[in-house]
Amino acid sequence: MVKTGVIGCGYWGPNLIRNFRSTKNCEMVICCDKDEKKLERMKSLFPGIKTTTNYQDLLDAKLDAVAIATPVGTHYPLAKACLMADKHVLVEKPITRSSEECQDLINTAESRQRVLMVGHTFEYTAAVNKIKAIIDSGEIGEIMYVSSTRVNLGLFQPDINVIWDLAPHDVSIITYVLGKNPISVNAQGKAHYTKGIEDVAMMTLYYENGMIAFLHNSWLDPQKIRNMVFVGTKKMLVYDDISANEKIKIYDKGVEKPRYYDTFGDFHYAYRYGDIYIPKIDEHEALGEECRHFLHCIVENQIPRSNGYVGLNVIKVLEAANQSLTMQGTSVAIDSNSYQTMTGKGHEASEHRK
Amino acid sequence: MVKTGVIGCGYWGPNLIRNFRSTKNCEMVICCDKDEKKLERMKSLFPGIKTTTNYQDLLDAKLDAVAIATPVGTHYPLAKACLMADKHVLVEKPITRSSEECQDLINTAESRQRVLMVGHTFEYTAAVNKIKAIIDSGEIGEIMYVSSTRVNLGLFQPDINVIWDLAPHDVSIITYVLGKNPISVNAQGKAHYTKGIEDVAMMTLYYENGMIAFLHNSWLDPQKIRNMVFVGTKKMLVYDDISANEKIKIYDKGVEKPRYYDTFGDFHYAYRYGDIYIPKIDEHEALGEECRHFLHCIVENQIPRSNGYVGLNVIKVLEAANQSLTMQGTSVAIDSNSYQTMTGKGHEASEHRK
Amino acid sequence: MVKTGVIGCGYWGPNLIRNFRSTKNCEMVICCDKDEKKLERMKSLFPGIKTTTNYQDLLDAKLDAVAIATPVGTHYPLAKACLMADKHVLVEKPITRSSEECQDLINTAESRQRVLMVGHTFEYTAAVNKIKAIIDSGEIGEIMYVSSTRVNLGLFQPDINVIWDLAPHDVSIITYVLGKNPISVNAQGKAHYTKGIEDVAMMTLYYENGMIAFLHNSWLDPQKIRNMVFVGTKKMLVYDDISANEKIKIYDKGVEKPRYYDTFGDFHYAYRYGDIYIPKIDEHEALGEECRHFLHCIVENQIPRSNGYVGLNVIKVLEAANQSLTMQGTSVAIDSNSYQTMTGKGHEASEHRK
Amino acid sequence: MVKTGVIGCGYWGPNLIRNFRSTKNCEMVICCDKDEKKLERMKSLFPGIKTTTNYQDLLDAKLDAVAIATPVGTHYPLAKACLMADKHVLVEKPITRSSEECQDLINTAESRQRVLMVGHTFEYTAAVNKIKAIIDSGEIGEIMYVSSTRVNLGLFQPDINVIWDLAPHDVSIITYVLGKNPISVNAQGKAHYTKGIEDVAMMTLYYENGMIAFLHNSWLDPQKIRNMVFVGTKKMLVYDDISANEKIKIYDKGVEKPRYYDTFGDFHYAYRYGDIYIPKIDEHEALGEECRHFLHCIVENQIPRSNGYVGLNVIKVLEAANQSLTMQGTSVAIDSNSYQTMTGKGHEASEHRK
Repeated sequence: MVKTGVIGCGYWGPNLIRNFRSTKNCEMVICCDKDEKKLERMKSLFPGIKTTTNYQDLLDAKLDAVAIATPVGTHYPLAKACLMADKHVLVEKPITRSSEECQDLINTAESRQRVLMVGHTFEYTAAVNKIKAIIDSGEIGEIMYVSSTRVNLGLFQPDINVIWDLAPHDVSIITYVLGKNPISVNAQGKAHYTKGIEDVAMMTLYYENGMIAFLHNSWLDPQKIRNMVFVGTKKMLVYDDISANEKIKIYDKGVEKPRYYDTFGDFHYAYRYGDIYIPKIDEHEALGEECRHFLHCIVENQIPRSNGYVGLNVIKVLEAANQSLTMQGTSVAIDSNSYQTMTGKGHEASEHRK
Repeated sequence: MVKTGVIGCGYWGPNLIRNFRSTKNCEMVICCDKDEKKLERMKSLFPGIKTTTNYQDLLDAKLDAVAIATPVGTHYPLAKACLMADKHVLVEKPITRSSEECQDLINTAESRQRVLMVGHTFEYTAAVNKIKAIIDSGEIGEIMYVSSTRVNLGLFQPDINVIWDLAPHDVSIITYVLGKNPISVNAQGKAHYTKGIEDVAMMTLYYENGMIAFLHNSWLDPQKIRNMVFVGTKKMLVYDDISANEKIKIYDKGVEKPRYYDTFGDFHYAYRYGDIYIPKIDEHEALGEECRHFLHCIVENQIPRSNGYVGLNVIKVLEAANQSLTMQGTSVAIDSNSYQTMTGKGHEASEHRK
Repeated sequence: MVKTGVIGCGYWGPNLIRNFRSTKNCEMVICCDKDEKKLERMKSLFPGIKTTTNYQDLLDAKLDAVAIATPVGTHYPLAKACLMADKHVLVEKPITRSSEECQDLINTAESRQRVLMVGHTFEYTAAVNKIKAIIDSGEIGEIMYVSSTRVNLGLFQPDINVIWDLAPHDVSIITYVLGKNPISVNAQGKAHYTKGIEDVAMMTLYYENGMIAFLHNSWLDPQKIRNMVFVGTKKMLVYDDISANEKIKIYDKGVEKPRYYDTFGDFHYAYRYGDIYIPKIDEHEALGEECRHFLHCIVENQIPRSNGYVGLNVIKVLEAANQSLTMQGTSVAIDSNSYQTMTGKGHEASEHRK
Repeated sequence: MVKTGVIGCGYWGPNLIRNFRSTKNCEMVICCDKDEKKLERMKSLFPGIKTTTNYQDLLDAKLDAVAIATPVGTHYPLAKACLMADKHVLVEKPITRSSEECQDLINTAESRQRVLMVGHTFEYTAAVNKIKAIIDSGEIGEIMYVSSTRVNLGLFQPDINVIWDLAPHDVSIITYVLGKNPISVNAQGKAHYTKGIEDVAMMTLYYENGMIAFLHNSWLDPQKIRNMVFVGTKKMLVYDDISANEKIKIYDKGVEKPRYYDTFGDFHYAYRYGDIYIPKIDEHEALGEECRHFLHCIVENQIPRSNGYVGLNVIKVLEAANQSLTMQGTSVAIDSNSYQTMTGKGHEASEHRK
C-alpha cells in the first residue's frame, strides 16, 4: 500500500487525488494547498482526506510518494524537498523551469534511489499509444513532417509563456511516438497581454534525418484545436484529440515517384489518393493509467516511461525555444549528444537504485 | 468591346477564357499554349476560339488585352512583351520571380499607359470582401494576431516553392483586409521531394503595431485546409474557405481586463465567451468579378484594386521569406518605406496615364 | 434538510445520488438495489452511504423523499408504495407503463399531499430552456413542423420498445417548448432482435393548428444523433445536443409570399436565405437542476414543472403510438380534452395539497 | 452519331445539353422550351445550338433521340409523342404521373422498338455503385433497416408533392442497391404552403424479409441533408452525399448474440464497436455516365439499367404513398407480383426489339 500525498489543489490536483483514491494499492492520505478554500472543497469532494496549508507536513508524514501540481516556478523546490525526504515524486509538466533544476532533481532521485516521474499525460493516452503502434509497425513509412496545432482561448499562465504551457504536450508526444529529439529550434511569438509572456507562438523543430515539425500554440484562438498531422513516406495520419469517435484517421495518400513531362518542360509528381481508415480506440482515463504506472514503478522498483530524463529532454527544447524567441526567431541548435535517456525501461531495482 | 487573348491553357487558363467569353464588353479572340493538345481541348470547350502555339501572334493581333496564366518563370518576359506591344495585362500570381522584374513591369505599364493587374483572386471573393467590411466596421477591434493554414496534398510546382505557390493568397488577403504590410519575416521549411523546392513551410510576419501573423503552407497534408483566424481585441473571426455555408464565423470571445488574485499570488485574466454569428455571403465566382474589374479598368482608365504595386508588395514578402529560408529562419526585415501604393483607387485617366 | 433515498443503482441511480449529495438542503441517506455488487460500488463511490437490497427499508426509514431509477415495469408499484408511506417521489421517465397507473399515482400524491415528479431531464437543460425562450419570444414565428432524430447503437431495453425508451424525451421537449399536445399519432417500427420489442421506429404527431412532428428513434444506428429541427413561419432552429459549442443554430431562412410565374405557367415561392446565429448557452448539469427543483418543490410546497400530469400526457402519446404499431401504422386519435395540466406552476401549498 | 434533342431548358435541361455535347458519338442538335429567354440563354451557353418553342419541331427533325426535362405533368404526352415519332426517349424522374401512363409508355416503346429510359441519376453515381458493390459482397450482412433523409429549403414544386419530388431518388437507390421492392407503404405529411401539395413527409416501407425503410423528405429544412443509413446484420454503412471526401463510411458495429443477465433478471445484448472505414470513390459526373449509357443502349440495342419498368416500380410506390396520405397514414399494400422487370440487363437487340 503506497501512501500518497498531493501538493496543489487547483485545476489538476483534484484529478490526481480522485485517481489515487480509486487505485487499489494506494492510500491517498493528505493534500496541501496555500488556499484554505481549496482545501475545504477537497474535504467535501473527498470525505476523510487530510489537508494542510504547509507542504512540510507531507515531508514529515509517513508518506511514500508525493505528486506535485503547483505552478511551474515551485516545481523544483517542492520536488527537491520531497526527494530529500525520501519520497517518490510525480511532478506535473513542465518538470522544472530549467534543465539545471531538472538535472539536479534527477541526480537527487538517483542518489536517494527514488522514482522521479513527470506528468506527460499524453504518453498514457490510448490514442497516442495507438499512433505509436501504427507508426512503429511501418504502415505510415518514415515520418517526414509533423504539424501540430494546440490552441484555445485562455487559460493564460502568469509565469510561463504559451510554449512552456502547451508545447510540452507536443514535444513529448513527438519524442515518445517517434523516438527522436530535435537538433535545432526556431520560435516566434508575441506577448499581447502580459509583458514578456508570449500568448501566441510558433515553433519549428528540425531533426537529424530531415524531418521537420511545426508546433502552433496559442491562448488566443476562438476554437479549441488539438490536432497533429504525421506525414509519412507511405501514408498520412491525422490525430484530432477533440473528436469523440474519430480521433485517428489514416489516409492512404502519398506522392509517387513516377514522373511525367509537362507543357513547359517541367516534371510533375503523381499523387495517390486512397481509402481512409479510422481505428477503434479503447478509451480509458489517461491520468488513471499514469497514476497506476507511477505506483507500479514505486512498488516494482522500475523506471517510469516519463522519467526525469524524458522531462529533461523536453526542457532542453523549451529552453532553446525561449532563446530563439529572444533572438527574433533565429535558429538555436541543440547538441544531440546532450539528450540523455535512462538505459532502458523496466530496469531492476539494483540498476535503478544503484 | 475589349479584344482579349489568353496565354497558358493549363489549369487556370480555361477559367479565364470561360469568364472572358461570358462578359458582355469583351471579345475573347485567341488563346496560346505550347502544347497542341491543350489547344485542341480549348477548341472543343470553346467553339470558335482561335489558337496559336506562338505568343507573338497575340502581340501582332489587334488585341487590347492579354491575360497570362503560365508558370511563374515566364510571367516577366511575356508580360513585358505584351506591355511593349501596348496590351493591357493581367498576370497570375505571383506576378514575377523578383521585385526588380515587377518594378520593371510597373514602369513599363506606366510609361505606356497600360493597365497592369495581378490575379489575386481572393481580393475579389465575396467572403474576403465580407471580412474586410466586418473588420473595417470595427466590430472585431484591433487585429492582434492572424493565423492562416493553406495546406493540401500536391500540386507540387516544379520551379517555385510552396511559399511562392500558396502564400501569395495569404499575404494578399491580409494586406487587402487589414491594409498593412509586414516589417519582418521569418520562414522555415523543408524540401522533401525536389532539391531546393520547399514543399512544407511556415512563415511568421511581424507588423508595426505588434500584430503577428503565422502562415502555414504545405503540399504534403492529407486534408485540404483553407483556414484563417483573425483575433481582435473585441472579437475573433474564423474564415473557412472550404465550408459551403459557414465560411465566416464571428466569435464574441475575448480576454477581459479585470483581474483577480489566485492561490499563489498570481493574477489571472477573465475570459468572455459569447454568441457565434455566421453572416450570409452572397456567393459569386471571384474570377468573373476579377475579369470584369480588369475590363472595367481598361475601359474606364482606372487603376485596378490588385495593381502592380499590390503585386510588388507581395513579392517583397516572398523574397524576404526565401532569404530567411536560406538563413535557417533568421528574421529578415523589410523597410516599411519600400512598400509602395498607387495613390488611390479609381483614379481618373489623366492620373493613370499621366 | 430533506432526507432522501434512491431505488435503483444501475446506470442512472448513481447520478441521482451524486447530485443529491452535493445539494445543500438535502441529506442523501440510503440507496437500494437488488444487486449486492452495485451496492458495493455505491459504498466505494459514496463513502458513508447506507445501502439495502429491500426497498421497504426506504419506507420505514425517516426519509422525506425517494427517487426511483429502476426498470419501467417497477415504477408504478415502487412509487405507489413510497407515496403510501408519505414520501415525496421522483420517478424516472417514462413515469409508468400505462396512463391508468400514472393517474393512480397522481391521485395518490394529491390525496396524501405529496410531490410527484417525473424525471424529464431535458426540461431542465440550458439548451431546451434557451429554445423555449427563443420560441416564446416570437423570433421563429409559429412552428409549422418539428423533426427529431434520436438514434444510436443500443442500449436495448428488455421490457419496453425504442419508442417508450427514447421518445419520452422528444415528446416532453416538444410539449414543454411549444405547450401543445398531439391530437393523433402514427407509429411504424420493427422488432429485429427481441420479439415484440421494436428496436427502430418512426412516429408522426399531428397537432391542432396543422403542426406536424416526425420522431425517429432507433437503437440500431451507427452514429449517435440527438437532433431536433423546429421550422417556423419566420425562421428555423436546429438543436444538436451532441455538439459541444454549437447546440442551437438559428437560421434566418424562410419561404416568402411573393410569387412569380414560370415557363410552364406555374408559380414559385421565393426563398429567403440569411445569417446563422448560434447563441451562447450557459451550461450546467441538467440533473442537478432537476434534483434541486424536486427539493425546492418539497420545501416550498410547489408543483414541479415535470409533474404527474406532464408525465401522464407523455404516456398517452406513447400508448397511442403502441396502439398504432399494432395496427400497421394507422392513425390513432387522442382526445385533446384528455390532456390534463396542473392549474399553474409555482402553486402555493394550499392549492397543491388542497 | 446519335442526333439528340432536349425538351425543357430550365434547371436540369442545360446539364443534359452540356453532357450530350461533350459525348463523342452524339450530336446535340436542338433544344426546346416555351420560354424564349431560356432559349436565348441556351444559345449563349451553347453556341451553334438550334432552338424552338414548339416541341413538334423535334418530332419532325431528323433526330434519333429526345431527352425530356419538363415538369412532371408533361412527361407523358411529350414522351408518348416522341416515341410515336420513333425517337428513343430519356425522361426525367418521376417518369410519369401514374403507373397507367408509365405502362403505356413502356408498351409504346416496346411496340416501336425504342429505348425508354428514366433519369434516375443516382443509379449512375460512383457512390451508389460503390455501396451496391459493398453490400453485394456480403460485408454488411443482410440489411435490416434503411433510414434516408433528403431535406432542404425549397425548391417547392407546383404540381407534385415533396414525396414525388424527392423520394424517387430514395426509392430508386434502395431498389437498385438491394434489389427489393416494398410490399407496403405508410406515408404521413403536411401541406403548409400550397393546398394539397405536401411540403414535408415521412414514408415507411416494409419489405418481404422484415426489412424496413424510413424516408424523410422535406422542402422545409434549413440544412441540406442527403443521408442514408444501411444497417446490416454484420456492419453498418452511412452514405452522406453532401460530404466531399467521406461520402461512404462503413462502421464495424453490431449487436452480438451472447447475452448476460442483469440486476432485475432481464437479459441484455452485447454490442460490438470497431473501426470505421472510408473507401475511396472515383468521382465522375453521374449525369455524364447516364447520358453515355442512354446513347450506348441506343447504339447497341440494349436495355437501360433505369428502364421503363424501373421507373414504373418507383411510381407504384409513390402512388401507394399518395393513397396512404389521403388515408391518414394507413398502410397501403403493394402486390409484390405487380412489380415487373425487364428480363435482364444488356439484352441483345433481338430480345429488346422483338
